[in-house]
Order: sequence, then structure tokens, then C-alpha cells
Amino acid sequence: MAPVDELRARLGEIHDLSRAASLLAWDERTMMPAGGAEARAETLATLARVRHEMFIDDEVGRLIDQARSGLDGEAAPGESIDADLVHVVARDWDKARRVPSELRAELARASSIAENAWVEAKRESDFEMLLPHLRENVELTRRYADCFDGYPGITHVYDALLDEYEPEMTTEQMRGVLADLREGLVPLVADATDNAADSNGDPFRGEFPAEPQRELVAQLIGNLPFPEGSWRIDPTEHPFAISIGTGDVRLTTRYDEGNLAMALFSAMHEAGHGLYESGVDPELRRTPLSKPRSLGLHESQSRLWENWVARSRPYLERLLPRLVEWFPGAFEEIDADELYRSANRVERSLIRIEADEVTYNLHILIRFELELEIFEGGLELTALPEAWNARYRDYLGLEVPDDAHGVLQDVHWPSGAFGYFPTYSLGNIIAGQLWEAANRDLGDLPSQIGEGDLASLGGWLRENVHRHGRRLSPAQILERAGCGELTVEPLLGHLRGRVRLATEA
Amino acid sequence: MAPVDELRARLGEIHDLSRAASLLAWDERTMMPAGGAEARAETLATLARVRHEMFIDDEVGRLIDQARSGLDGEAAPGESIDADLVHVVARDWDKARRVPSELRAELARASSIAENAWVEAKRESDFEMLLPHLRENVELTRRYADCFDGYPGITHVYDALLDEYEPEMTTEQMRGVLADLREGLVPLVADATDNAADSNGDPFRGEFPAEPQRELVAQLIGNLPFPEGSWRIDPTEHPFAISIGTGDVRLTTRYDEGNLAMALFSAMHEAGHGLYESGVDPELRRTPLSKPRSLGLHESQSRLWENWVARSRPYLERLLPRLVEWFPGAFEEIDADELYRSANRVERSLIRIEADEVTYNLHILIRFELELEIFEGGLELTALPEAWNARYRDYLGLEVPDDAHGVLQDVHWPSGAFGYFPTYSLGNIIAGQLWEAANRDLGDLPSQIGEGDLASLGGWLRENVHRHGRRLSPAQILERAGCGELTVEPLLGHLRGRVRLATEA
Repeated sequence: MAPVDELRARLGEIHDLSRAASLLAWDERTMMPAGGAEARAETLATLARVRHEMFIDDEVGRLIDQARSGLDGEAAPGESIDADLVHVVARDWDKARRVPSELRAELARASSIAENAWVEAKRESDFEMLLPHLRENVELTRRYADCFDGYPGITHVYDALLDEYEPEMTTEQMRGVLADLREGLVPLVADATDNAADSNGDPFRGEFPAEPQRELVAQLIGNLPFPEGSWRIDPTEHPFAISIGTGDVRLTTRYDEGNLAMALFSAMHEAGHGLYESGVDPELRRTPLSKPRSLGLHESQSRLWENWVARSRPYLERLLPRLVEWFPGAFEEIDADELYRSANRVERSLIRIEADEVTYNLHILIRFELELEIFEGGLELTALPEAWNARYRDYLGLEVPDDAHGVLQDVHWPSGAFGYFPTYSLGNIIAGQLWEAANRDLGDLPSQIGEGDLASLGGWLRENVHRHGRRLSPAQILERAGCGELTVEPLLGHLRGRVRLATEA
Repeated sequence: MAPVDELRARLGEIHDLSRAASLLAWDERTMMPAGGAEARAETLATLARVRHEMFIDDEVGRLIDQARSGLDGEAAPGESIDADLVHVVARDWDKARRVPSELRAELARASSIAENAWVEAKRESDFEMLLPHLRENVELTRRYADCFDGYPGITHVYDALLDEYEPEMTTEQMRGVLADLREGLVPLVADATDNAADSNGDPFRGEFPAEPQRELVAQLIGNLPFPEGSWRIDPTEHPFAISIGTGDVRLTTRYDEGNLAMALFSAMHEAGHGLYESGVDPELRRTPLSKPRSLGLHESQSRLWENWVARSRPYLERLLPRLVEWFPGAFEEIDADELYRSANRVERSLIRIEADEVTYNLHILIRFELELEIFEGGLELTALPEAWNARYRDYLGLEVPDDAHGVLQDVHWPSGAFGYFPTYSLGNIIAGQLWEAANRDLGDLPSQIGEGDLASLGGWLRENVHRHGRRLSPAQILERAGCGELTVEPLLGHLRGRVRLATEA
């Protein structure tokens, strides 16, 4: 067997263990009886450990070296699957080997303890209860970052963190693009009118039994360009999407019987993630190239389907008769303009996951800037709540009443996921750029959506984004898709439209 | 760490991989989108291989030896968990090491090919299409049995096959007890009246929408003595039960909208299996002792709940008002006696999985006897259909019209599972003995069931059967439960009652 094929065979088995872990994680959050929790934690830990040990084996390194020397010439990214595979896996392997197993175990242990402490601290709205655990997380995360001292492309402590979620993006690039976003967004939000609580009421609020919600959502997802028999959707507490293998995408949503918007838009969001996973080139299956490369790109797909498609006027206009049909009494008096405005209300608020599209990125900017201050050393953790509250005052004009509605609201820091937050905004930025490029290539996207044609956009995204898997970097994908450099202008233009809509109302 | 603890840690990880595989298998048959099939097959194969390699490792053997020498004295089975663990695992390890990996791979490959050929052959009702594959299966199975030449307790080629499903039972014992069963059963069936097609009609046949079936079945399972939050039930094509871990039992059933008996009794059957898995001593969790020891014992639990409980007059009498409530129009005219008779009809038929309780074991006897003839060398596979048909004539008085309704009906032989069939009848025999012992210990079981008390029987079974896991052999369990030696009399007595009921009608 050629070394590259031997490498593939090994990676295939390792990939299988990841698939198994994905299914266990999905099941834990959708199907598992409560009594299965203890066994599930043990099983997931074992799968992760066995998988990690199989991967960091010396033999894998030897096969990577041999496979690399067997490649002919200098293939550019995207030209040769073998070359791309060796390139991506060599970096994964090297990164995995640099972190001692003991540190990995300590990180896992500390984050698990901190997450439990966080639940308690949030309930009591007492940051002090979380503080020692957060300190431990930050300390361990610094030690993790130290493992990449002098690593190619990593010159800043935060680079090492970012690299876990957004490989090949530096802190300086992220700082630059998010500063651009802040500059455009803070004044935009300052000028916007909060219209969420306007007197007309919100047609998405009311009484919507779960069963028709389920059936409608299944229909709407069925209208998306998924291959037949390749997905399912189930209820869960915190919606997510995960793919178990080629042709097996699991979407989830939450049916809030008082708020129809919850299921509708979260399902479209997760479907966007799912379409990405299902659109990877089948030739990459069972290899590490078969997963999307960055969280920013991944989030761009969910946001694009949720915000650019499902909250657009033509989509909502087509949806309206179905809402009338499925929820008698709730939508008869509503016209498409009102539905459109209702789906795009703007309101400064304290909680990120409840934020509207316009204000959402300010929540992210605050977290990103605070993370930088923590890891660049300027910010003491004891001062974190105060720094948090000051920024909510500056950027959103809001007073944070307590830690539960402030610094304690998200699980990311308790779980040790520093460097994750900025990928949310990056996703929105990329979504804006991809939408513009697709609209240019395909003609008039809003009209196509108005005609019920979601396959054109789906096909364009598959061709320009999904199919590459991890073969290309996000920058390479954007460039080849005709998006040019990363820029916040398309997103800002889109959000200006939302603000106008809210202000007109 | 003491060797026995080190052994436990290793076995725990191996156990985790089995749990993962169980969940994947459950998901494949209940939840997985069709597009996930290819990836699922790969993932399950990898899990099995990794698990097997981890288990047959020399280090595991060394730890077994060390742990064994660390045990004090001669603990009897059931006295010391460590001693039982070492005893059971030593045998598992030794057996696993005796079968070369290549032979295991060949067996898996051949059975997979034969199963596909069987689907085709059954559709065409052409035994010749399966014949070469069956020959291959038998040949490989002989080579498998040869691996245990001279193994303690294995003196017959069929012993080695039986040992996979019913460890510590010899061919001679099985032959003896099933011969007793045949002697009692053939004349009993010959005297019985087929009453399945009697003119009163069958209240379980009609139109029963799936949704109320689901809700009723969930209620009925909810009334069984499962710990809270430890189970779920989902629809599937071929009902089964599987446990993923302590407190996580997955039941399945099939909702036939034309036949309510399908879901009702198959759910009780699978719940019986599930109760067994959920009743194992929590101290055995995450060890190889935590699974039931034999298929015969396992089947005894499913049959006991399906046939002795759910088809009993007191259970059905309590069920009747609920049937009236859930299926308006279908049961108003029925009284408890009629319901009882309907749930216990007798009819000689060609297809095992459709057989009633009385005739069922004759189907098994036929398969067992033919398996013995094949492996004892007397029966050529070319003559198998003829031998099959002759026995259906002798035992059931039926002419087999074609192979699809004869020798091709079951998947077991195509999948290489020789030695499996007799455990079905063994389960019925053991169920009869356990029922008698429980009834003796608990007083009047039928009255308790009539009062809706299923917890007494559940507790008795948990205490006398379930909790032991693999610590005791089936013979030891039966003896300690007060059942004495294996005997067919309780089962025959029970079946005579069914025949009387059918004949009276």
C-alpha cells in the first residue's frame, strides 16, 4: 500500500471514532433518557482519548512524512486531494503533539468543574463564585497557548486560541476587521429606533402548539436543497446541528409555544450549518478534509440562511400563506410588510442569544475585546464585571443590573473556550460578502427566493464554499468565490437596511 | 494501582466502545436517515475492530493473570465481584484469542455477502441462489468451531457454536431438553384446534391509527417496574431492545395500523429484555459482568412479560377499559374472556415470527434439529429444503409451498448465526420455571397482576435473575431462584392451558 493510502486508512478509522462521538453527543441532547448521563460522559471521554492516542501515534507522523515525500511537485491548494490531505493533517498532527496529555486532561477537568460552578454562579448572579474557576481556566489556557510558542503563523498568545476555531487567522486581522465593524455599528445602533415593543404587537408571539410547528418546520427544511434522505430534525433545549457522516445531517430546534420565531429561524440557522456539512465533496468522505475548515465560515452559512434568506421579504411573503394555514387565527390580519418588519425588529438588549441581527455583533465585540484584554495582560479578572458593564453602557447604552444579565450569561468562558466568540461576527461578515457575490453571479437572488427557488443559492454555495471542506483556507475560499478580501461593508449595508426598516415602522 | 483495578480500567474503556456501538446500532434502526448507511457500516466495523484489538492485547492477559493471583482463596460464584470478573473475563479473553483475526474477518465478510444474497433469494423464493453462500458460512463456521478443539467444556462441534449464545450449555443438554419439549408438544399441537380464523373475528384486527397506539404503549411500558428516566421506546421495522448503559434502555416496537396486537405484545416482549438489562446490579456497571449471561435467560425475560403477563387474563382484563378509551368503536362489544381468547389464538402456520405461543417452539425444534444434522455431518445442504419441508409435515402437518415460506424465511443462517435458534425455546422453558418459582414465592401472581401490581414480579426477577449480570451461570441462577434443574414441564403445563382455551372457544 502506498504511504498516502496507509495514512488514509488510519485517518479513516480515527474519523470513524469522531463520527461515533458525534452521534453520542447528538443523542445526549435529543434522545437520551436522563439515566444515561453518567455512562454517556464515560463513553465520550473514552472515545476522545482513544481517538487522540490513535492520532498522535508516531506511526501517523512517519506516514505523513512518507506520504509527503511521495507527492509530486508543488500542488497548489485545491489541486490535489492527497497534497491537501497531507498538508492539513501534518498541521493537525503537529498541533496535537505539542499539547501534553496531562495539560489536555487538566483543561478538560477544569472546564467541567467551571461549567458546574457557572450554573450555580449564574443562578446566584454572583461572579465571585465563578472567579477562582475562571482564573484556573485562564491560567491553563495560557499554558496551552505557550505550547505554540514560535509555531509558524502564531506570534500572539491569542493567535494560539483563535487557531483552534479559526485557523490561519491572526489576532491582528481579527482585531482589524472587528474594529471596522465597531466603527460602523456603534453609531448605527445609536441612531436606530427600538421597535421590538411597538404597540402593533408581534404576530410571532402568541399560542403556537408544538405539533403544527414541527410539521411546518419539517416542510420548510424539506424545501431547502438537501439531498433526499440525508437529514432529520429533532427538538432540543439549545439548538445545534451536527453531521454524523456523509448523508447524515442532524438538525435540532426548539419549539417555544409562545414564540413561533424561535423554531422558524433557529431551524433555518441550523439548516445552514447542515447544508455546509452535507455539501462537502463526496471524495473527501472519511478523511479529515471532510469537515468545514473554520467556525467563521460555518457560521456564515447558518447566518446566511437564517438572516439573508429566511428574514428576507420575499421568503416571508411566500411563508405567510403557510403560517395562515398552519396557525388559524394568528396571521389572517397580517400582510407581508408587517411580517417582514416583525421578523426584523431591533432592540438594544442585555442578552446575546436574544439579540436581534443588528445589535448582535456588539455583544460579540464586547466579548472579543475583553478576551484580548485578559490575554494581553491588562485586565485583572476581578475587574471583569466592571469592564463588561462599562462596555454595555458605551456600545449599547444599557445598564447591566446584575452579573446574571451580564458577564455570567454565556457558558464559553466557564468551558474554557476563549477565542470562540469572534467567529460569530466573522460569520456574519462573511455571510454578507458571500451573499453579494452569489447575488452578482446568479442575477437577482431576492426574486429567485420569491419564486421559491432555493436550489440556485444552495448550488452556488455548494460549488463555491461547501465542497472544498478543509482543502482551502477561508481566505482562499472567499477569494475564489469572488468576494475579495475580508470586508465589513456588505454586512453593514445589510444591517443599515434592517435599521431603516425598524425606523420606518 | 492493584492489577484488578488496572484490569477494570482497561475493561471499562473497552466497555465504553461497546456502548458506543450499541447506540450506533440502535440509531441505525430507529433514527438514521437513509443517507447515513455507508458511514454507519464503516463506523461500526472500526469500533468492533478497535475494541477487539484492545481486548486481545497481551497486556490484558497479563493483568488477568496478576489479578487472579491477587484473589484470596476460593470464592464461590457470586461471592466476590473481583473473582467473578476475573473468571468471566479470563474465559472471554481466551476465547477471543483462539480465533485468528483473518477468520473473524472472513466470517464477517461472508455473512454480509450471504445476507444480501438471501434478500434476493427470498424474493425469488429460490434456495439455489443462497446455497453457495450458505456452504461458505457452514465451512467458515466449522473452521471457527475447530478453534475450540479440546477447549474445556467443548466436546462437540455444535458446543462451540452454542457457547457463543448460551455459554456453559452443551449440545447434549440442549438436545435432551428440546427432545422432552418435542415429545410433549407434537401431540399437544396435533390435538389442538386452530381457532385463529374463527368466525367471531379478532378484535385486535381492524383500523388502529399509529398515534394512539404509541401513546397507549408508552403508558403500558410506563406501568412496568422500570426506574424513572431510564428508558425510551421508538418505532422500528423489526422490534428489538438494547441497553446503552446503566439507566439507558432503548425499546422499540412496530405499529401495524391493521393489527393492534403487534405493537402491544412486541413492546411487552422488548420491555422484558429491557427490564433484564436495567436490573443488573449497579456495582457491575462498566464491566463485562454488567450484561446478561445467556440468550436463553434473556429470552426468558421477554417471553415472561409478553406471554405469562401480557397475555394473561387478569392483565388483559385491566387493559380492556383502556383499549375502549383509546380506540373508540373497536372494543365496546368485547368482554374480558373474548379478549383473553383473542390474545391466545392457536394456529399451525408456516412462518416462525408469526407463530402463536403454542406452535412457536415447533418452528425452533425444526431449526435446531436441522442445524445439528448439518454440523454432525449427516445432512447435505442441497437436501436442506426437503428436510425442512418433511419436518413441517411431521410436526405441524403443513405442506410448505415454496422456499420463501420455508427454509428461506429466517436471516439467521445467512448471517452465520448457527446455534442461536435453540435459545428461543430455552427462553420459553426458563420463563415457565421462573414464573412457577415467582408465583410460589410471591403468593398469587395472577391476582397481583389483576390489581395492577407488576412491581412484585419485577422485584422478584431483579433479585433472583437480573442483578447477577454475568456473575452466575444460567444453571446457578435457576437453582438459586428455586427452579431446580432445567425442565419443560412448567412450559408444557402453560401451553396446555392455551390449547384448552383455544379448544373451548
